[in-house]
Amino acid sequence: MDKIISYIDKNFERFVSELSEFLSISSISNDKSKKNEIYRCSNWLIEHLDNIGMQNVCIFETGVHPIVYADWLGAGSDKPTILIYGHYDVQPVDPIELWSNPPFEPIIKNDKIYARGATDDKGQVMIHIKSLEAHLKTYGKLDINIKLLIEGAEEIGSPDLEIFINDNKELLKCDYVVISDTAMYKENLPSICYALRGLAYFQINVKGPNKDLHSGSYGGCIGNPINVLAEIIGKLKDNNGRITIEGFYDDVIDLTDEERKELAKLPFDKAKFMREIDVLELNGEVGYTTIEQLTARPTLDCNGIWGGYQGEGAMTIIPSSASAKVSVRLVPNQNPDKIADLFIKHINKISPPTVNVEVEYLHGGRPAITPIDTPAIKAAARALKKAFDVEPVFVREGGSIPIVNVFKKY
Amino acid sequence: MDKIISYIDKNFERFVSELSEFLSISSISNDKSKKNEIYRCSNWLIEHLDNIGMQNVCIFETGVHPIVYADWLGAGSDKPTILIYGHYDVQPVDPIELWSNPPFEPIIKNDKIYARGATDDKGQVMIHIKSLEAHLKTYGKLDINIKLLIEGAEEIGSPDLEIFINDNKELLKCDYVVISDTAMYKENLPSICYALRGLAYFQINVKGPNKDLHSGSYGGCIGNPINVLAEIIGKLKDNNGRITIEGFYDDVIDLTDEERKELAKLPFDKAKFMREIDVLELNGEVGYTTIEQLTARPTLDCNGIWGGYQGEGAMTIIPSSASAKVSVRLVPNQNPDKIADLFIKHINKISPPTVNVEVEYLHGGRPAITPIDTPAIKAAARALKKAFDVEPVFVREGGSIPIVNVFKKY
Repeated sequence: MDKIISYIDKNFERFVSELSEFLSISSISNDKSKKNEIYRCSNWLIEHLDNIGMQNVCIFETGVHPIVYADWLGAGSDKPTILIYGHYDVQPVDPIELWSNPPFEPIIKNDKIYARGATDDKGQVMIHIKSLEAHLKTYGKLDINIKLLIEGAEEIGSPDLEIFINDNKELLKCDYVVISDTAMYKENLPSICYALRGLAYFQINVKGPNKDLHSGSYGGCIGNPINVLAEIIGKLKDNNGRITIEGFYDDVIDLTDEERKELAKLPFDKAKFMREIDVLELNGEVGYTTIEQLTARPTLDCNGIWGGYQGEGAMTIIPSSASAKVSVRLVPNQNPDKIADLFIKHINKISPPTVNVEVEYLHGGRPAITPIDTPAIKAAARALKKAFDVEPVFVREGGSIPIVNVFKKY
Repeated sequence: MDKIISYIDKNFERFVSELSEFLSISSISNDKSKKNEIYRCSNWLIEHLDNIGMQNVCIFETGVHPIVYADWLGAGSDKPTILIYGHYDVQPVDPIELWSNPPFEPIIKNDKIYARGATDDKGQVMIHIKSLEAHLKTYGKLDINIKLLIEGAEEIGSPDLEIFINDNKELLKCDYVVISDTAMYKENLPSICYALRGLAYFQINVKGPNKDLHSGSYGGCIGNPINVLAEIIGKLKDNNGRITIEGFYDDVIDLTDEERKELAKLPFDKAKFMREIDVLELNGEVGYTTIEQLTARPTLDCNGIWGGYQGEGAMTIIPSSASAKVSVRLVPNQNPDKIADLFIKHINKISPPTVNVEVEYLHGGRPAITPIDTPAIKAAARALKKAFDVEPVFVREGGSIPIVNVFKKY
């Protein structure tokens, strides 16, 4: 490792200037006028990967933006094969006027580089590439087999990635997938994310009378769609913050004592967390810490609601209909489709006969978890500790990364 | 009465043609371009009232549209004085394409006259005027003293009427006020409306985090403003349809047995009522009939609600805020200001500390009731029975007519 570290030190300036180059390409995937920049970015990667000694470097066209692939498989079939996933596309830059520096003119301040994509995900991609370069240029080989898959459409939901993976199962075959597209828990605190929550997203539509009614002439005997919708939503959680849907928790894998201990070690600053979002009190499921509630426990949130009069002042109507968006975050091993069944049955059960209640299941995504005591995770932890001289933490992410389950599936 | 009826029969055609003239004036009070029509209508009334023998016929200018006044006070101070209130302005006609006949070209079909304002309120005004004419032209006098107050701004909320009444207390002094601005309960069923519900209207604003949050990263520990708002609204009524606000029913005058009997006599066709608004089941406060629920019992309805994402598909946010309009219909002797205090206290009491809940009291109107065993009401009932040969019904109106309490006040 000494030689590798010395290589990195010697080439540090160039690494930074190459990262700057990579960051200066405005590869915004949702902007059709940036199609050329997307191509420029994928070509830049190809050239770069060729130069550092990766093999089978190539571009795969998709229905959206090209996927960059490269590998180095000379370690031998007795050595593990790791597929590293990343993406070279970035988020849009609006509102542009809030940038203190142009988003595609990288600038370094206090040893940090600022540009669109620096932390999502070009920076992470470059760490892997430069690590591969240091190994390949120093020893002419790697100790394990590596495959790189760097896509250009992550920020628009990776619409063609599953097709690509399905079409190229043999090419992408591997023992482990590494995704570096989340954050470290804290500066200088190396973090291994081993679990993600899933999602089931619903729209509830309540239909009452066939037109808006005058609340004076009709109020008192009509099932008011907003009142009914509010009652339904109000009943979905109990006073302990538990979701009341029958069977909802049946497949939840409880946190192990070891996991709870690991999560408890995270330096979570509750006061700062509350100050940043300006809330005076947190709540959530009784019996769990905030970190556990945020990452390892299922939740239910209303994401939108509407119905009746929303303007200034007063309008005395009983509206004809009302709707809400309601989503549940799921944890291993909850299955979104099964949860959707339970959800719909439950809503139907608690809906009164005065109105028509319809539940649409808009989409679902599975939760994901990987054991933390496997050789690969242990190796990752050892490596991180060596590099940072700090014991890495194991974290769960509260959100979802849909491609994780695509990789799992294939 | 025979001579009077004979006068009416002889002049029936002319009466209808005068009503048609009155209806053909497009006196839309909320349309500035119709200012001339408003003037034409008030002048038409003045001339008409002069012609039939009313006295002190005059126009009062207001900040909005003119008020028409006339009286006949020759019955003597030992006879009662009745003030008859009506309005000559009408609602707008949009959407004009849905009219099968132009709204200001009255047409007679099956003995009914169709035009904008025919039942609200020019028809009712003309009944009173033609009745006065028949008496005055037949006997040259009335048996009681009559004052007419016909305003031109009812459909825009009578903004200057209270000022006018306050400024002219002596002129308008009377024993009774008759308002003919509601409907008969059914064709050929004479109806005396003796009670109106009041209103207290609120907006509830729930503020949570200082910005919309990602429901994956934050879901599980945050007081979600929509969920909280739904819970609050869901708790405002119990399973018996009773409003749960402490003290809410304290001032409610229970229906007397006699009133309940009267209300039970009304030919209410529940199946037709439900069919017309296309609902499959009614509900409401347990222990009361639908008619009672609609007119004699207080109610609570959510008139509007909004918050978070309302578009197509899914957006996984915990919104920063959510709001709802909530109104209560009040019955005698509930006081809207007192109810507002109770409402606000109750909401504050049931609101969780995770969010900021603010209640705005937007406006209130008192309920109204008049005893049904007074000499005047009894006389009205006798007269209606004579005219229709049917016992009149006593009804309560579920809505509000704010000027009733203005008349009461002065």
